[in-house]
Amino acid sequence: MRVSVGDEGDVFDVIVIGAGPVGENAAARAVRGGLTAAVVEERLAGGECAYYACIPSKALLRPVELAAEVGRMPGLELRGPIDAAAVLARRDQAVSYLDDQGQVRWIENVPATFVRGRGRLAGPLRVEVTTPDGAVRPLRARHAVVIATGSDPAIPGIPGLREARPWSNREATSVQQVPKRLVTLGGGAVGCEMSQALHALGALETTLIVRGDRLLSRTEPFAGEMVARSFQESGIDVRLGRNVERVERPVPDGPVTVYLDDGSQVEADEILVGLGRWPAVRDLGLETIGLEGRGPIEVDASMRATDVPDGWLYAVGDVNGRNLLTHMGKYQARICGDVIAARVNGQPDDLPSLRDTADEQGAPQVIFTDPQVCAVGRTEELASAEGFAVRAVEYDIGAVSGAYLQADGYVGRAKLVADQARGVLLGVTFVGPAVVDLLHSATIAVTAEVPLERLWHAVPSFPTVSEIWLRLLEEYGL
Amino acid sequence: MRVSVGDEGDVFDVIVIGAGPVGENAAARAVRGGLTAAVVEERLAGGECAYYACIPSKALLRPVELAAEVGRMPGLELRGPIDAAAVLARRDQAVSYLDDQGQVRWIENVPATFVRGRGRLAGPLRVEVTTPDGAVRPLRARHAVVIATGSDPAIPGIPGLREARPWSNREATSVQQVPKRLVTLGGGAVGCEMSQALHALGALETTLIVRGDRLLSRTEPFAGEMVARSFQESGIDVRLGRNVERVERPVPDGPVTVYLDDGSQVEADEILVGLGRWPAVRDLGLETIGLEGRGPIEVDASMRATDVPDGWLYAVGDVNGRNLLTHMGKYQARICGDVIAARVNGQPDDLPSLRDTADEQGAPQVIFTDPQVCAVGRTEELASAEGFAVRAVEYDIGAVSGAYLQADGYVGRAKLVADQARGVLLGVTFVGPAVVDLLHSATIAVTAEVPLERLWHAVPSFPTVSEIWLRLLEEYGL
Repeated sequence: MRVSVGDEGDVFDVIVIGAGPVGENAAARAVRGGLTAAVVEERLAGGECAYYACIPSKALLRPVELAAEVGRMPGLELRGPIDAAAVLARRDQAVSYLDDQGQVRWIENVPATFVRGRGRLAGPLRVEVTTPDGAVRPLRARHAVVIATGSDPAIPGIPGLREARPWSNREATSVQQVPKRLVTLGGGAVGCEMSQALHALGALETTLIVRGDRLLSRTEPFAGEMVARSFQESGIDVRLGRNVERVERPVPDGPVTVYLDDGSQVEADEILVGLGRWPAVRDLGLETIGLEGRGPIEVDASMRATDVPDGWLYAVGDVNGRNLLTHMGKYQARICGDVIAARVNGQPDDLPSLRDTADEQGAPQVIFTDPQVCAVGRTEELASAEGFAVRAVEYDIGAVSGAYLQADGYVGRAKLVADQARGVLLGVTFVGPAVVDLLHSATIAVTAEVPLERLWHAVPSFPTVSEIWLRLLEEYGL
Repeated sequence: MRVSVGDEGDVFDVIVIGAGPVGENAAARAVRGGLTAAVVEERLAGGECAYYACIPSKALLRPVELAAEVGRMPGLELRGPIDAAAVLARRDQAVSYLDDQGQVRWIENVPATFVRGRGRLAGPLRVEVTTPDGAVRPLRARHAVVIATGSDPAIPGIPGLREARPWSNREATSVQQVPKRLVTLGGGAVGCEMSQALHALGALETTLIVRGDRLLSRTEPFAGEMVARSFQESGIDVRLGRNVERVERPVPDGPVTVYLDDGSQVEADEILVGLGRWPAVRDLGLETIGLEGRGPIEVDASMRATDVPDGWLYAVGDVNGRNLLTHMGKYQARICGDVIAARVNGQPDDLPSLRDTADEQGAPQVIFTDPQVCAVGRTEELASAEGFAVRAVEYDIGAVSGAYLQADGYVGRAKLVADQARGVLLGVTFVGPAVVDLLHSATIAVTAEVPLERLWHAVPSFPTVSEIWLRLLEEYGL
C-alpha cells in the first residue's frame, strides 16, 4: 500500500485531506481505479455529517415528524409527548457514540491508509500531518492531493455573540439536555430543522429570528411561508425581518439575551446560530502553494483546482463552495476519484461520468421539517433571472387523493418550473408531509432533462402522493 | 349540450359507458377537445375505485402502516391498539358515505351529461340505457362510444364457494363489523392488502391461502417472500402451495369452513376471495355489434377496439384487459378522450401523446402492505423471457442511512433490471416501509428510458431512502 522513502515520508498515489463522507468516497473511487490512497483526518473519521449534522439531526427529527403524522390520523393516539431521553439515546446510537472505529475500518477496507492528524499542504504534492502526539509526519503524493475538509459554521460579528458561546449545528445535534428556552438566529436548514426538533423535544419556548422576510430564502417563497405557518401553529415564535443588535450573556452558563432592532429582546437558556457555513481552508498550508485561502477553492468540472499549476490539486465537497450538501460532495468525490484514476492510467478523462453537471443544474435538497421542503433545480425567480423562457405551475398536494388518505388535513404544495423553449423542467419543489422520497423523481426529471412529453407517460400510481405529478402536468396543459 | 332527435334519442359526440375514474377522464378529455359527451352509469358515479377498492382500502391500511412505523421508533408509544371504529369512520368519510353526488357534480361540471342507468350497446353508435325506473332511454353517439365498465371479481368454481357468499374487495373494504376470524383465498394485491388491514383492525385469526408458492406472484420473488415474512411475524397464518378442495357454510351467517388439499381445514367467520378480476363485458349488448363479449375488448394503442368496423368503439380501463389498475385506466382514458377529439377535429391522431406506450413497458403498481411493494416495468424473469440482454442488481434498503434513520430495524430490498444492450432500465422494484413515493422516480426512469449514465448524475438527497438509487447504480458498476 505504501512505500517508505526515508525522510521524504510515505508515498501514496493520492492523499486526501479530510475523512468525511466526501473524502472517503474520493479515496475509495481512486483506489477502485487501481491507485493507492491515504486519508488524513484530525477529528472523527466520518466527518461532520456522521456525527454533528445530517445523521443526528435526522435522528432527532424523524420521531417529531412521525408524532405529527400520528396527530393527523384518527384511530391512533400517542401515550404522551415524545420521550426525549429515548430519542437522544437513539441519536447517540446513530452517531456511534462519537466513536469512529467503524469509519476507520471502512477506510482501511477500501483499502486505504488512514492517518490521524492535522493535514497541511507543504508545497506541491506534499502534505505534513501533525499527529495527535504532536509529531509531524511527512507524506508525499505521487499524483494528486484532494482537499475535502468541509466547512465550519459562520459566526457573524454581532456584538456579544461570540462571547455568548453560541451553539452551532454541532452542539444542537449533540444536545444532551434540551434547554427549556432556545433562541435561534437564522432561517436556513440548520435554523429551521433544529428549532423544530428541539422545540418538540422540550424547548417549549423557542424563538426563531430571521433577518430576511421569509424562512428558507433560497427556495420557492411558499416553502418558507408554509414552514413558518407550521412553526407558529406548533408554538414556535417566528420573527421575520429582524436584525440582532447585540447579545448578552453575563454569566457563562446563565441565560442569554438577544436584543433586536425593533427594541424587543428575547431571553433564552441557549442560543443557536445557523447563519451559513464557511469553507474550511484555514491552516491548510494553502500559502505553500501560492493560494490565499480566503474563500472556497475554485475547481473545474473535474474537481481540479483551477488556480494551481500542474493540475495535482483537487477540492471536493463544501470546501469548493459549489453546494454545501453532503450528497453533492459525495457526487463530486466520485467524479474526482474516477478522474484522477483515469488521468493516472492514461484513460480518457472527458467522459460524461467524469464531469460535474448536476451542481449547476441546481442540487436537490431536503429540509426535514414538518412540512418537509424538497426542491431540485432552479426556483422560478432564479430561472427567470438566468433568462430562460420560464413557465411555472403550482398545485395543492392536499387535493390529491393519495395525500388526503395519507393524513387528515394534509397541507402541501408543489411547483414545476419549465423551460418552454426546450420543453424540459428546470426546477421542482414539493412542500408537505412525506414528500421526501418523491423528490428523486424530480431530480431524475430535471437532471436528465426528460422532455415533458415523455414525463406525461410516466403514470403515477393511484392513490399516492406522487399523483401530484399528473396534476402539475395537467396544469401545464398536457 | 345535447340535441334531441325524437325517437332516435339524445345525441352526443361521445357516449361513455361507465362513470368510474376512467370513464370520467375519457369524457373530460373529449369535452376539453370541444366535443359533447354523456356518461352512463348504473351504480355509483366514481366507480369501484372510489367506493370499494383503492380509496377505502388505503383508508384502512394507512393507520395500520403508521402504527407499524411507530412501533419501529423509540420515543413514541401508542396508547393502545388501533381504534378500529375511528378507522372505519374515516373510511366512511373517504368513500363519501357511498353517496355519489359529488362525483355527479364533477361530471356535470366537465360539462358532460350524466345518465343514470344500465347502458347497453344497441348497434353501431347506439346505446340504450335502462334507467332506475325501468324505462329504456335511447342515446346516439355522433362519433364514438367508449366502454369503461371496469371489471368484476372472479369467483372460481370451487365446490361450495359461491354458496358461502364470499366477500370480494367490495365487502372487505366496506366492512362495518370486522370478523374475528377471516380466511382469505388468493395472494395478490386484494388478498394481501385486505388480510393485513382486517387482521390489524380486529381479525386476530387471519389465514391466507395461496395456490402458488409465493405471494404477489407477478412481482420479483423477494417481494412476496418479504411480505409473507412480515405477515407471519404479525400473526397472520400464511399457507402457500395449497389448493382449496371445498368450502362449507351450512348456516348463511354462520361459520365457514375451508377444506384444503393437505387434509387440513380452516374455520372462519368470513371468507374473502381475491382471485383475480374479469372484464365487465356481460350484458353490454356487445352481440349487437358482432362481438362475442367473452373476454377483454381488444384495443389498439389509441384505445380503439380492433374488431369493430368503422372505428367508433373504444374501450379503456380494466375492460380492455391491458392492466387492471386505476391509474393505467385513467392514463388510457386521457389518451382515448384526446384521440377521439383529434379524429373528430381532423387533427393528427398519431402524436406520441396519443399512443399508449406505458402499458407495455410494465405498469407501476403499489401494494400498500407493510412492507410496501412498489414495482414498475418488467421483472428479471419476464425481461429475460422476452429476450433482453438482462443484467439485474439488488441491494438491501436497510443498509442505506436514510432507511435506518427512518425506522429501527428497517427491512427492505430493491432491484434494478437493466437492458445491457441499450443501457436503460427495464424494471425496478422497491420493497420496504415508506417506499411508496420513491416509485415514481423509477417510473420516470423506466418509462422515459433514461440512460443509466444520466441516472448517475441524478444525485439522491442524503440521508433519504432514495439513496438506494446510488447503491444500486454502484452495484451495477457505475
